[in-house]
Amino acid sequence: MRIAIDAMGGDFAPDEILNGAIESIPQLDKGDTLLLVGPSETIQSKIGSKNLSKYANVLKIVEAPEVIGMDESPIDALRKKRNSSISVMTKLAADGEADAVISAGNTGACVAGCQLRMRNIEGVNRPGIAVVFPTFEGPVTMCDVGANISCKPINFYEYTVMACMYSKYLLGIENPRVGLMSIGEEEAKGNEIVKKARELIKSDPKINFIGNIEGRDIFKGKCDVAICDGFVGNVVLKLTEGLVDGLFKVIKHELMKESLLLAMKFKPVMMRMYQKYDYNEYGGALLIGVNGTCVICHGSSKSKTIKNAIMASRKFHNLGINEKIKEYLATTGVKGTDE
Amino acid sequence: MRIAIDAMGGDFAPDEILNGAIESIPQLDKGDTLLLVGPSETIQSKIGSKNLSKYANVLKIVEAPEVIGMDESPIDALRKKRNSSISVMTKLAADGEADAVISAGNTGACVAGCQLRMRNIEGVNRPGIAVVFPTFEGPVTMCDVGANISCKPINFYEYTVMACMYSKYLLGIENPRVGLMSIGEEEAKGNEIVKKARELIKSDPKINFIGNIEGRDIFKGKCDVAICDGFVGNVVLKLTEGLVDGLFKVIKHELMKESLLLAMKFKPVMMRMYQKYDYNEYGGALLIGVNGTCVICHGSSKSKTIKNAIMASRKFHNLGINEKIKEYLATTGVKGTDE
Repeated sequence: MRIAIDAMGGDFAPDEILNGAIESIPQLDKGDTLLLVGPSETIQSKIGSKNLSKYANVLKIVEAPEVIGMDESPIDALRKKRNSSISVMTKLAADGEADAVISAGNTGACVAGCQLRMRNIEGVNRPGIAVVFPTFEGPVTMCDVGANISCKPINFYEYTVMACMYSKYLLGIENPRVGLMSIGEEEAKGNEIVKKARELIKSDPKINFIGNIEGRDIFKGKCDVAICDGFVGNVVLKLTEGLVDGLFKVIKHELMKESLLLAMKFKPVMMRMYQKYDYNEYGGALLIGVNGTCVICHGSSKSKTIKNAIMASRKFHNLGINEKIKEYLATTGVKGTDE
Repeated sequence: MRIAIDAMGGDFAPDEILNGAIESIPQLDKGDTLLLVGPSETIQSKIGSKNLSKYANVLKIVEAPEVIGMDESPIDALRKKRNSSISVMTKLAADGEADAVISAGNTGACVAGCQLRMRNIEGVNRPGIAVVFPTFEGPVTMCDVGANISCKPINFYEYTVMACMYSKYLLGIENPRVGLMSIGEEEAKGNEIVKKARELIKSDPKINFIGNIEGRDIFKGKCDVAICDGFVGNVVLKLTEGLVDGLFKVIKHELMKESLLLAMKFKPVMMRMYQKYDYNEYGGALLIGVNGTCVICHGSSKSKTIKNAIMASRKFHNLGINEKIKEYLATTGVKGTDE
């Protein structure tokens, strides 16, 4: 399998990205190749000639002199910077020269690049970003968290199908329970689009649909899959991140006030929790619905996340999930329009 | 001041509601009246003849034999149950017989009842629910958290004006910093409605607008006021609730595994945090934009919350915030349509 990695994407690029790539090598299969996409000279000097010759069979450098900044407008940047790592990487995938792409760079540009170049899986109107929330009650897959901020009802249905495949095959959850994010459990709750989405999802007997869920239910073990539009999902994802950080800050502050010893004793427990409920364990988010495998990592990704992203992309690719999505959508009776 | 209280609203009604009313009495001003709205017999027997005669000058019972359930459809319930506590209470306010209404019951019915009966403040197209998030960096007022799930850009602007009044006068924050919830800081981020809302808010030089904020920023001290539509706000509110509960569950579990003694030592710290960052301290959420004062409490409210809600309604009423909102909107140059 050939995995293209955006060497220049993310707050800690290229160092942490390249370290993550190297750390993943022992776990790769024979014949797997990592395509490091970025300015060749920078990559060469960072990896060092020793590693380059040691891993000559695995690591290939693909020249991409330009970099898309984190704050650049995705469409403009893709148009202007045809030699950027994201542009080159998605083109590799489109041309059949890479089986997966991984980036911790500009999410919008990566999503747009994949959509433009790789095209969608047959039957999918819009790809979505799926992310796994590790909760006390088990992992919850949420889709979409930011690919599509003006969803049509049919998009919600397609996200349901795709996120269920993710939950079933990647996380091993048989017959995942699907909840639709709304503002109350009752059927009448939600805006018009969510209500129509509800009808579509409900009309598919193969989906284990439990109905509307509320924000609080994500952490209560009520569902395995949570469906929403990209605006709501993005707010949820970032709020969770900010709240967890904020809460630990408060706990630390209060513990220090109580006693330094108590604070010190609490630290290893907190570290263990961070590890256990660290979404970096899942290697980032998957852009599902495009022809190929695309893992989007957090901008602040360190080497561990990149390594996990590489492993996640292999799993996704090897399980043939895109094929399963295509087959499912080809036979579903649920229809809608993306217009 | 006359404060009408829905004696039958909430998971712990009528006991906790009536207890909260009685607990608030020592802090009321002379001449203040609490109108307990619900089935007279139930209220009488719960309060007891001793308290009734002791507080005869303060407590008045207003008969309302029907109750709207937590899961009933708001509009249907209001239409059918004209003698419900919510119907009677909002009618009291509309008729000038109550200065404030408080309910921990069906939020939708309470919002709809207030809108139908009390009407909006001049210049306000749609009322919004404002809630205060107590964060490590200070209180953040968010509006709307559920009154209006299909917002027009002008609604966002009006929420901004109203939430700023709340932040300034109730929380004492001079020139509050306003953030608009979106999915990225850059101007181009957000859906079409949010982008138009941004332009409206930005066009008012009297607003201290800091631009888009993301979910994570609420807990990072970036803004004092966070503006969003009722769908997003409701998800944020409930997610926060669920995540905090979930996280404390994880902490407890991990601490118990580490050592029982450590868990026991952590408990008082946790309790202190709960108190310090308890949004019940603010007595619930305010429905702002209606002619009058309406405090909406969480369904799980205990007596303390009800007491705080009574105090909050007094403060809001006595500060004349509705008058200030009306004056502000009468002179603003920002116009838009709710159509």
